[in-house]
Amino acid sequence: MANLATAITSLIESKKYGTLRDILVTMNAADIAALFEDLEPEFLPRLFRLLPKELAADTFVEMESDSQELLIKGFSDSELKEVIDELYIDDAVDIVEEMPANVVKRILAQADPDTRKLINELLKYPDDSAGSIMTTEYVELRPTFTVEDAIKTIRRTGIDKETINICYVTRADRTLYGFVTIRRLILSQPDVLIGDLAETNVISCTTMDDQETVAQTLSKYDLIALPVVDGENRLVGIVTVDDAIDVLQEEATEDIEKMAAITPSDKPYLKTGVFSLYIHRIPWLCILMVAAIFTELVINHFSNLMSVQFQSFISAMLLACIPMLMDTGGNAGNQASVTVIRGISLGEIEFKDLPRVIFKEWRISLLAGATLAVVNFGKMMMMYAITYHNSFNNQFTPYLLIAVTVSIALCCTVFLAKFIGCSLPILAKKIGFDPAVMAGPFITTIVDVTSLLILFGLALMLVPKMV
Amino acid sequence: MANLATAITSLIESKKYGTLRDILVTMNAADIAALFEDLEPEFLPRLFRLLPKELAADTFVEMESDSQELLIKGFSDSELKEVIDELYIDDAVDIVEEMPANVVKRILAQADPDTRKLINELLKYPDDSAGSIMTTEYVELRPTFTVEDAIKTIRRTGIDKETINICYVTRADRTLYGFVTIRRLILSQPDVLIGDLAETNVISCTTMDDQETVAQTLSKYDLIALPVVDGENRLVGIVTVDDAIDVLQEEATEDIEKMAAITPSDKPYLKTGVFSLYIHRIPWLCILMVAAIFTELVINHFSNLMSVQFQSFISAMLLACIPMLMDTGGNAGNQASVTVIRGISLGEIEFKDLPRVIFKEWRISLLAGATLAVVNFGKMMMMYAITYHNSFNNQFTPYLLIAVTVSIALCCTVFLAKFIGCSLPILAKKIGFDPAVMAGPFITTIVDVTSLLILFGLALMLVPKMV
Repeated sequence: MANLATAITSLIESKKYGTLRDILVTMNAADIAALFEDLEPEFLPRLFRLLPKELAADTFVEMESDSQELLIKGFSDSELKEVIDELYIDDAVDIVEEMPANVVKRILAQADPDTRKLINELLKYPDDSAGSIMTTEYVELRPTFTVEDAIKTIRRTGIDKETINICYVTRADRTLYGFVTIRRLILSQPDVLIGDLAETNVISCTTMDDQETVAQTLSKYDLIALPVVDGENRLVGIVTVDDAIDVLQEEATEDIEKMAAITPSDKPYLKTGVFSLYIHRIPWLCILMVAAIFTELVINHFSNLMSVQFQSFISAMLLACIPMLMDTGGNAGNQASVTVIRGISLGEIEFKDLPRVIFKEWRISLLAGATLAVVNFGKMMMMYAITYHNSFNNQFTPYLLIAVTVSIALCCTVFLAKFIGCSLPILAKKIGFDPAVMAGPFITTIVDVTSLLILFGLALMLVPKMV
Repeated sequence: MANLATAITSLIESKKYGTLRDILVTMNAADIAALFEDLEPEFLPRLFRLLPKELAADTFVEMESDSQELLIKGFSDSELKEVIDELYIDDAVDIVEEMPANVVKRILAQADPDTRKLINELLKYPDDSAGSIMTTEYVELRPTFTVEDAIKTIRRTGIDKETINICYVTRADRTLYGFVTIRRLILSQPDVLIGDLAETNVISCTTMDDQETVAQTLSKYDLIALPVVDGENRLVGIVTVDDAIDVLQEEATEDIEKMAAITPSDKPYLKTGVFSLYIHRIPWLCILMVAAIFTELVINHFSNLMSVQFQSFISAMLLACIPMLMDTGGNAGNQASVTVIRGISLGEIEFKDLPRVIFKEWRISLLAGATLAVVNFGKMMMMYAITYHNSFNNQFTPYLLIAVTVSIALCCTVFLAKFIGCSLPILAKKIGFDPAVMAGPFITTIVDVTSLLILFGLALMLVPKMV
């Protein structure tokens, strides 16, 4: 892309607009938008004016909001009107949502009255609702139409519709009756009634449904569009599959960010400013750092106790095992929580599955805990042979007891981590919290403290006191 | 769903097959498949036989592979043939891939010769390639057709095609010429030539392209299908958007699993056996636990050094800060790596962006490191006032120096963690490793060791020796 940008720049500088146009029209809107991001902003208006009307609108939709704003500011009123007229309503709404107030005012002033009314209505739906991502440009048929009437309607109005692949059938009061695919229309006789042809077992959502649920529904039933109805079952819009894909991708990114203790943002990384990234990351870093006070207090308390009870090389050995214990507990808990959170996001795991999930994780933690305890014990024995026998002055018994203590503590930690890791996200979801926020670092902090208590508690019981 | 399952079970037990049929035909394939998973396996064959042919095939596709296998084993040869005849080729291939050899043999024996040949050809494509997810059932037109011919062709053959919303135009040698949407066909005059109508600027992929790239392309260009060509640009299949969504969801899940140190599996959590989950998780737990030997050695070495140089309450204080330091480093590194890995997956970040990414993270780490150091210093001062002044016998200077040491170490750790976190995934991708595997625990281990070295190094320099 970088090389294309260089070539385009030199063509602009030598004013070869004919050549530029020839290149641009062979490209796709998404690629032109990507190219625009690599060019000097001052060139954008000139290049944009070279695009044919429809391609210009498609490209505009694909651009980043700061470039859109820049272009709109450079547009004459008639240029702006031309672009807005070509946009689908849902895209126009997306753009308006990102613009500062003065730009929004200009856009609405240039839109024709019907479009303006629609944009204003769609802007009222809450963020992340089906209403906010739907389009109102769909083909609407009546049960009393024949197939021939339907195809005539599509011929007359289809050019402005976002999809004609599925047409929706509504009653006179605009309530949803069913749908009919273009395939069905094409394969049917001209005189068949739409009312007889339509599939009335229709999956729909309401304007207030969460956009993620809507996208999951489209994906689950392999649909290319989902009708959106209002409280009285009147059809008010459709959500198309391309928007559903964007929602699914966004939601996956959000889940990943939350699991990594980042407040989600919907801008691409390279487009986000340093300060904004900092603001999205620092609160969790601070909270989790301060939460580590508990581990600090536990270690401090017990290391004072141990300095009285144990010789210093024994205390040192126990303290040296802490990172291993905490990391393994964190990893084991993470594995469970992340699996469960993804399962919740994909709609595979619900609250009713909690006992099954806990039972499954309990059996996994038995296996994993035992394996890790054995491996750890082996490792500690090996380390004694290689190096620690010196610091222990060849006293094997205390070392053996430490190894047993650490191995048991490890096993308990894995148990606990898997249990908390699998159950907390499901419980969080049940009481209305975000399961992803419960993952990773949050669970780690709980597991950290508890595993330390187990380690030190066992050590004080099992390891022989100073003679 | 659980209540529906109970109701259905009692209807089966009282042999109310008419009622059952009436309920089932109002349901969607995906819902029936989900219901089947909640029922006793012995009921499946009876219920399945109640479904109309097409719904039966759609339901079969949506079912889990173990239930599919169970049903196939119960089918008579003619029942099996009926289901196979209704399947789209790509779905048939997906099913065959999951079945044991003897079941595959029966399926292939019942498929008609053409289908058998196609299945065998599609099975040859590597896993995760475009070839392995494409279907061969698309509408193919010639440039010499008129719109009227095209619509006749669709009427004649469309019933067996996976989509008729996009039709592909090929030359006599089957090389890809372009595409034409059904919308375009419907809106055009009957005598227009397809060659003139077709969009020849067509985005395609080859059979060997990675399925994730293919799915990203469909999403990027908002397509509902993508043509797949062979080495000679001959059209051999199409990938439809519903399959692309599944691929994107799967790949997001895989990334999430890898970041949480789990070997990815493509089965849903609740369907995966305990032992299989254990096997996917234990290797990383073991590797990372053993890798903690380094932190252990570092702590052991320095705590012996410190026990000579410092009074015991100073050593205890420094050791108590380790979990906080390591967790914060891990979290800071994770934030950077996870953001970058997701960016790579979404195609937003490439190798050429490495300097930009590093520069961005460097600035973020300056801000974050400074903030955390200040917050930590404040926290430590507060802790002194509340409790630690007792254990330090009111000696403020050594505590102040420890607080400075820990704050500087924290700042350095955040620097380092962000740097490694953002650059390692990009470098891994460049040399052909999986960036997601580089995330989380792997980076944590590196950051752990280095941050300990910084902490102890600074402490030995700054904190006053035992008098």
